[in-house]
Amino acid sequence: MKGKTMQTDKKGKLFVISGPSGAGKGTICKRLIDESRREDLCLSVSVTTRKPREGEEEGVHYYFIDEDRFREMAEHGQLLEFAEVYGKHYGTPKEKVLEKLAEGTDVVLEIEMQGALKVKKNYPDGVFIFILPPSMAELRKRITGRGTETEDVIDLRMSKALDEISYIEEYDYVVVNEDLDEAVSRVQAIIRAEHSRVTKDINELISQYKEDE
Amino acid sequence: MKGKTMQTDKKGKLFVISGPSGAGKGTICKRLIDESRREDLCLSVSVTTRKPREGEEEGVHYYFIDEDRFREMAEHGQLLEFAEVYGKHYGTPKEKVLEKLAEGTDVVLEIEMQGALKVKKNYPDGVFIFILPPSMAELRKRITGRGTETEDVIDLRMSKALDEISYIEEYDYVVVNEDLDEAVSRVQAIIRAEHSRVTKDINELISQYKEDE
Repeated sequence: MKGKTMQTDKKGKLFVISGPSGAGKGTICKRLIDESRREDLCLSVSVTTRKPREGEEEGVHYYFIDEDRFREMAEHGQLLEFAEVYGKHYGTPKEKVLEKLAEGTDVVLEIEMQGALKVKKNYPDGVFIFILPPSMAELRKRITGRGTETEDVIDLRMSKALDEISYIEEYDYVVVNEDLDEAVSRVQAIIRAEHSRVTKDINELISQYKEDE
Repeated sequence: MKGKTMQTDKKGKLFVISGPSGAGKGTICKRLIDESRREDLCLSVSVTTRKPREGEEEGVHYYFIDEDRFREMAEHGQLLEFAEVYGKHYGTPKEKVLEKLAEGTDVVLEIEMQGALKVKKNYPDGVFIFILPPSMAELRKRITGRGTETEDVIDLRMSKALDEISYIEEYDYVVVNEDLDEAVSRVQAIIRAEHSRVTKDINELISQYKEDE
């Protein structure tokens, strides 16, 4: 132990990236992984009861499971959160995430607000980041720009976004995505800074120094 | 207001950089300022009752004041912390720091542990960063390497350092200064990340979005 450099951040951290649809959280997560050149950073892989689409790989895009297995996982607290979309189930497998964190890998989980709040309840040590559009007008423009939604659907999504924004105080960080490069680099800074945060594990570090002297 | 990009970090933040003598906090602060190329980042300037040395400028290196003025400031809570060194007084002027923060400038304050804890009491919104040597053996090497201290003084400083390390849990962040570039870049990431932190001002931001829609 004598003279050995002390480690302050051996364990990985869970970064939950959330925010209204259209704020750009998916793009930010993709860029985080693509640009990080870190082997110890990965996206969380969900379980789902839907069938794999062409090109989708087990354990890469999803873990594909059946309804019975899903129910069992949900009932035994093995999912950090889960939701139903068009009759199919999706969830975040707790054990897979904890395994990654234990081996020192950071896990990034992109998820909408309600899922994020469930994850916070089940894993409060996560770092919760809310991605905001630069303004509501810009959000409307982005949603409209896709050209796939009717006026009614757009209004519904705008009002959902406003509702979600009311929950920002449940998060640790808020990043305004006006310029994508800037937003990605801010999230990178947050990931870096969080590995220097003083946590309840600090006493272990202090003991290392005391033994060293 | 409509469509205007929301500001999440209009106010400056106080970053208190502390740690044992020999950990390198002075060098890190100097590099932070020299390399930041930010006009809105500055070092805190202390008041002192000692006489200016050659080349020292009022308001740049120190604010030079007399004992009466110092006592008055201390008694009226106008100092975030103060201490006596060789019969002369030194302190951090609260109003000067608050002025900088109000105009959106970040203030970096380099200070030893006891001063840092006093600042925390008087300004809990500060961000408190502890700089650690990579190991106690390395700290001893650095202190010894200066060649200016006797063995007794070195032992005294080592035991003071160990005592200071016990207070890390009072801090928000801990940065191990093994490689200087890496340590500076970590502190820069912390400064950046802190400007994205959700604070009690968040309701103001939420209201801006609600008005915008």
